[in-house]
Amino acid sequence: MGESLQEFFVNVKSAKILVNLSNPSTDNYASEISSNVGCTYSHTVRILHKFDDRGLVETNKEGRKKMIELTEDGRDIAQDLGDLIHSLQQAEN
Amino acid sequence: MGESLQEFFVNVKSAKILVNLSNPSTDNYASEISSNVGCTYSHTVRILHKFDDRGLVETNKEGRKKMIELTEDGRDIAQDLGDLIHSLQQAEN
Repeated sequence: MGESLQEFFVNVKSAKILVNLSNPSTDNYASEISSNVGCTYSHTVRILHKFDDRGLVETNKEGRKKMIELTEDGRDIAQDLGDLIHSLQQAEN
Repeated sequence: MGESLQEFFVNVKSAKILVNLSNPSTDNYASEISSNVGCTYSHTVRILHKFDDRGLVETNKEGRKKMIELTEDGRDIAQDLGDLIHSLQQAEN
């Protein structure tokens, strides 16, 4: 079992992108998010579209840029995912 | 995107097995757990072995049966997984 505990329970990329969106100190643009979570830009955009389809985020145009914000559902899930990832990291040590 | 929100973020089978172990009203034997979560017996046993390797459960022999119990780490993770699954279900409705 080479995988980490996180990988065993969680879709890590999607989880990191959602949790990253709940961080108030980062700019929520696809390009920033992709570099923060170490995911390609195109994969990040694809996941963000899925979040949008499922009502976890809303996008607002700011000039030519698209700013992404969590909805209430998205925020609840991000909070729980953050807690879970924390517990998984604790167990891993 | 045919998958559910749960499937999008979580390894549902593993999560269900861990959460099921934290339910005080069920008997924690591999056969009971596999039928509770709708997973084959052999797949359930494989996942329980991984939990054991990672220190999330302990097994105690009771006669010929093996009783499975969550460790403290396992309980913390089960709690957070339960909360997350609840939020994902809320968002799905």
